[in-house]
Amino acid sequence: MIKRFTWGRPVETEAVVKREAGERKLSEVPYFSQVQTGDGRVSVLTYHMGEHDIIYGLGENIRGINKRGWVYESNCVDDPIHTEARRNLYASHNFFLVDGRERFGVFVDAPQKVTFDIGYTDRDRLAVTVDAGGFDLYILEGDSLRQMVREFRQIIGRSYIPPKWGFGYGQSRWGYENEDDIRQVVKRHRDNGVPLDSVYMDIDYMERFKDFTVDEEKFPKFPRFVEEMRAQNIHLVPIIDAGVKIEKGYSVYEEGVENGYFCKKEDGSEFVGGVWPGRCHFPDMLNDDARKWFGRKYKLLLDQGIDGFWNDMNEPALFYGEDYLTKAFEKLDEYRKQELNLHTFFGMKNLVLGLSNRKEDYESFYHEYKWERIRHDKVHNLYGYYMTRSAGEAFDELEPDKRILMFSRASYVGMHRYGGVWTGDNSSWWSHILMNLQMLPGLNMCGFLYTGADLGGFGCDTTEDLLLRWLELGIFTPLMRNHSAKGTREQEFYRFGHVEDFRGIIGLRYALVPYLYSEFVKAAMRDDMMFLPLAFVYPKDQEAAVVEDQLMVGESVMIAPVYRQNARGRYVYLPEDMKLYRFRSSEDVDIEVLRAGHHYVKAELNEVLVFVRPNHVVPLAGGGCCVADVDMSRLRLLHFVTDQAEYELYDDDGYGKKIDLESGITKVRVTVDGKVDAEGALEAEWTLF
Amino acid sequence: MIKRFTWGRPVETEAVVKREAGERKLSEVPYFSQVQTGDGRVSVLTYHMGEHDIIYGLGENIRGINKRGWVYESNCVDDPIHTEARRNLYASHNFFLVDGRERFGVFVDAPQKVTFDIGYTDRDRLAVTVDAGGFDLYILEGDSLRQMVREFRQIIGRSYIPPKWGFGYGQSRWGYENEDDIRQVVKRHRDNGVPLDSVYMDIDYMERFKDFTVDEEKFPKFPRFVEEMRAQNIHLVPIIDAGVKIEKGYSVYEEGVENGYFCKKEDGSEFVGGVWPGRCHFPDMLNDDARKWFGRKYKLLLDQGIDGFWNDMNEPALFYGEDYLTKAFEKLDEYRKQELNLHTFFGMKNLVLGLSNRKEDYESFYHEYKWERIRHDKVHNLYGYYMTRSAGEAFDELEPDKRILMFSRASYVGMHRYGGVWTGDNSSWWSHILMNLQMLPGLNMCGFLYTGADLGGFGCDTTEDLLLRWLELGIFTPLMRNHSAKGTREQEFYRFGHVEDFRGIIGLRYALVPYLYSEFVKAAMRDDMMFLPLAFVYPKDQEAAVVEDQLMVGESVMIAPVYRQNARGRYVYLPEDMKLYRFRSSEDVDIEVLRAGHHYVKAELNEVLVFVRPNHVVPLAGGGCCVADVDMSRLRLLHFVTDQAEYELYDDDGYGKKIDLESGITKVRVTVDGKVDAEGALEAEWTLF
Repeated sequence: MIKRFTWGRPVETEAVVKREAGERKLSEVPYFSQVQTGDGRVSVLTYHMGEHDIIYGLGENIRGINKRGWVYESNCVDDPIHTEARRNLYASHNFFLVDGRERFGVFVDAPQKVTFDIGYTDRDRLAVTVDAGGFDLYILEGDSLRQMVREFRQIIGRSYIPPKWGFGYGQSRWGYENEDDIRQVVKRHRDNGVPLDSVYMDIDYMERFKDFTVDEEKFPKFPRFVEEMRAQNIHLVPIIDAGVKIEKGYSVYEEGVENGYFCKKEDGSEFVGGVWPGRCHFPDMLNDDARKWFGRKYKLLLDQGIDGFWNDMNEPALFYGEDYLTKAFEKLDEYRKQELNLHTFFGMKNLVLGLSNRKEDYESFYHEYKWERIRHDKVHNLYGYYMTRSAGEAFDELEPDKRILMFSRASYVGMHRYGGVWTGDNSSWWSHILMNLQMLPGLNMCGFLYTGADLGGFGCDTTEDLLLRWLELGIFTPLMRNHSAKGTREQEFYRFGHVEDFRGIIGLRYALVPYLYSEFVKAAMRDDMMFLPLAFVYPKDQEAAVVEDQLMVGESVMIAPVYRQNARGRYVYLPEDMKLYRFRSSEDVDIEVLRAGHHYVKAELNEVLVFVRPNHVVPLAGGGCCVADVDMSRLRLLHFVTDQAEYELYDDDGYGKKIDLESGITKVRVTVDGKVDAEGALEAEWTLF
Repeated sequence: MIKRFTWGRPVETEAVVKREAGERKLSEVPYFSQVQTGDGRVSVLTYHMGEHDIIYGLGENIRGINKRGWVYESNCVDDPIHTEARRNLYASHNFFLVDGRERFGVFVDAPQKVTFDIGYTDRDRLAVTVDAGGFDLYILEGDSLRQMVREFRQIIGRSYIPPKWGFGYGQSRWGYENEDDIRQVVKRHRDNGVPLDSVYMDIDYMERFKDFTVDEEKFPKFPRFVEEMRAQNIHLVPIIDAGVKIEKGYSVYEEGVENGYFCKKEDGSEFVGGVWPGRCHFPDMLNDDARKWFGRKYKLLLDQGIDGFWNDMNEPALFYGEDYLTKAFEKLDEYRKQELNLHTFFGMKNLVLGLSNRKEDYESFYHEYKWERIRHDKVHNLYGYYMTRSAGEAFDELEPDKRILMFSRASYVGMHRYGGVWTGDNSSWWSHILMNLQMLPGLNMCGFLYTGADLGGFGCDTTEDLLLRWLELGIFTPLMRNHSAKGTREQEFYRFGHVEDFRGIIGLRYALVPYLYSEFVKAAMRDDMMFLPLAFVYPKDQEAAVVEDQLMVGESVMIAPVYRQNARGRYVYLPEDMKLYRFRSSEDVDIEVLRAGHHYVKAELNEVLVFVRPNHVVPLAGGGCCVADVDMSRLRLLHFVTDQAEYELYDDDGYGKKIDLESGITKVRVTVDGKVDAEGALEAEWTLF
């Protein structure tokens, strides 16, 4: 059951698409004691946690599956150093569940900054602080954690479903400069028998970083190049940035100015901020007309054969605000005149570091939203959501029958209907493998099913073993992309010595595509999660409740990736007996049944652990060099049948926007004596693995 | 057996104090293939590692006990963000052991930059690169890892032994401003029954950050205040920085200039670099006269009753070099004139960030060392070592009969004879608890026995649970200090809600002092390690070899601290049966015997796990409010006796510099039927715990 409580006059975020009529006052809210401070402008809601209460949620954020013991902020920001000290990343996902003495869920629908102090200031106190402005608070109650998530997902609308090729492996690097760079990437994959479905194009493909342009020197005949790649089953996926370069003659800039589509300052002039191209304006994504206009610009690339995009820099990131830059240089002059000691030196350094993503810059421009002028900071967390919405709405119009790949860096609940997210500019750190895993359930809770991290790490230098271990988690995430930054070590698999290890692991991903795609679409259509903490499946198991490095993936599988350097295995907790498949490739595997309880399980650097639950099966296809080649006509079943197993395998053409779940499902039954029986749309030869 | 191989004409570091006569050429070195590149100026030695070879060592550095899979640099640097991407920290500890197909040790005695690529570029290759200049390479061979360490330690000389009070708990914060701040710290500890032996004084005690001054406004009668504290058994420990403020009338500055004791540029003028006080000169610690002069300055504080110091900023840290600062401001003017885009904006930002610790600044000044003029970068890694040596040599002269507490931030092998190290400006990150643990064996290998991390974390904001868990490791480290930075959350135990948890854990430390002090002095006098990887004690155990989060502490104990937020236990590997003491305080404990093998062991937030080996005992004293109060007359023995246990307990007055190990040892024997029998200097009442 979900109840809504309202404070003040909230800005409509359109996160919730179905809500009951009527309105309750915040003063009636259960569980929390609440006060307004700062002349009633800031709301603080507090809850006393039991000693062992666990808090799930907050989507894309740092720290564990259990969010307790830190303070988090919803305040989308572009900051690439994701240490434990961070409070906010690129997204604002204000949904969490309390599980302990009491069980309930909370969604704070507020586009301004929200702070979640979950046992940080006081070990036993949870405090939600909402910055000035109205907001809606939704309180969920239900029989189980998973059921509460389903109910929440029902009110926020169906999750985005990508084309099936979006489940293939993608190779990316900020640094591919031209056609030949990309051809080389594809060739090295194909030559080595390592599957690949997409190559991502980072900012260098554009003409001086201008949205919706393609640099003609680097890509002289772009549509033909797109076609050349498609002939090899490779999808090119260009990046789109939020900022629009200020440049005479550049049509996007000129149209935007002419029609007043850019965000404006108080004096009515366009706000100027610096990002990749230098001085930029920012489309007012919240304004219906501007959003429609910006969305239609994607057509420029769709028309050249492109069928996928990633939206970036849409927190929106600001290297600097132009007005402040002038002042900052004046302050630098003052420092220049002084002796630089403790105070002055760090003052100067912080001045320069503090140029980016300044609060005061975000307070200096406005949106026109639903016929109101509203200052950016009041709706800051909606910007990335509405940018991706602009694309999603345009795609529905421009490509009514075809799914277009779309994922974004910044997001808010609601954006999950229009695209996925990648988890931003992580680093080549072992700790970020675990962070990747720990974020997945929280993202799923908010409807972000199409998601993945930059495998191998975006910033810093990777190592072969780090990339291998990260891929061993990444083969389970819907978005599986290896991406890295200019200036870091190159990390395409063929930069390293042991090609056979990569071929085995990435090949296994393709064998798993039928299962992953099926579990994904079922989760989307049934408002369910695909990645679950163990506690969501085994709610009565006290030991499962504290497991922070294993996940349930769909209905049949548990994963426990190795994420420590030089490890040759790891500890795993099994809430029930499971069958362990230790894969070196989709063909090379050891199998053993493990009893419920704690185990130390060996896993060498080239080995992936897949645990199958009792009376469950997992369909495995013969691999291919791309998703289109995955052979759905011969499926082998991983199986752990002690009685009888039944599995619903969903499949479709991989493109169509209209999805009829039931007609796409084939029911497979396996009996304890190994008899396989299938019924449904898919005609396949089924064998036991 | 140790053999020395020489390349070129090495700078004498005096790391090694005993070495055989004669000299072998580098071309005769075993194990490695070696080349000289860059006109023979850079030496590269390579070794092909077996698939599962483990590399131990490199002292204070990031990553695991097994250093494989990363590239490390010996290049002392002041950079407080210790992520996995770092290659160097504050120290240069060029000693490592290879254990696998072959077993040998390597010490690269070179004060210039040395790089250790241990399976980073190529998973299976170890490459040591020594920057231009000569060096000595020592190759060790021996029956066991531990024996090779002992042999290495014999040639580098006996480790520093601090006064016994240095084993007490110390409270520190960059931010204690005056007498009353410190009084308050002491009072809150005493009032709450939490033991304390020392309060550290960070840079604010000085008059405008000038070495060997005390700000008279904040500490109007400093010697009286020192005495007031000592009456409460509190030792004040002031910080000393490397840079000397340029200020007319400041005697240290004036004497230094007058006698030519500061490092000079090529033109003979003093090098100017900025640190805390602003513009500074840097004493030429390598010059015998200058070093003697600087060391004697500690007398200014010894004479006021001080008996402990910490040496800081001695990499040496440089906020900026003055000559370059002028150029940098000119470059800033150029950026100012341009549009700031991808290239120019980050160019500007990196210009400012790059002001500190610049290679070119280190190449711009000189030392007078052993009658030669030598450019700083050629001996960079010796600076902190020689600063601490300057103090250590002065203490021997000024206080011949009394141990003075001394530890340093920067270090090189050899400095271990003059002081300990703390592991620098870490952060309040859970991952840094594990990093703390993983550094300890490597530090011990190089003779740094007196060592510890800033418990609770120096940078960033701590949490109550993080501090508790970190203390649960910290109670075993000789240096046990809670330290934090200005601007971060205050983290004295009394800032948090659960005083009883802190009282229990810190109290347990004091009960353990007899064991820890005894193990420490024995390790120092016998050139042994106090913290050992499991593999050093159980060399034939393949599963012990990969354990990265447990340590042996002295001869009787294994520790396995919890270092994950919200964990209520952890996995532990036992190479043999052990008895587990699960302490909540030195009085409140559960005991169970665990069989050899893998276990999941519960440990709530207030619980410390101590594992006692078979046929070993651990003496536990009654606590006190300080080390001087620890009651050595009544000792209780943790014991796991299946046959017979014997323990050598060393004790002394805690101050004297002349240590006679054998006469300080009391032998305690416990039989399987619980009979306790003691023989030696200590008269105590012994009981079984």
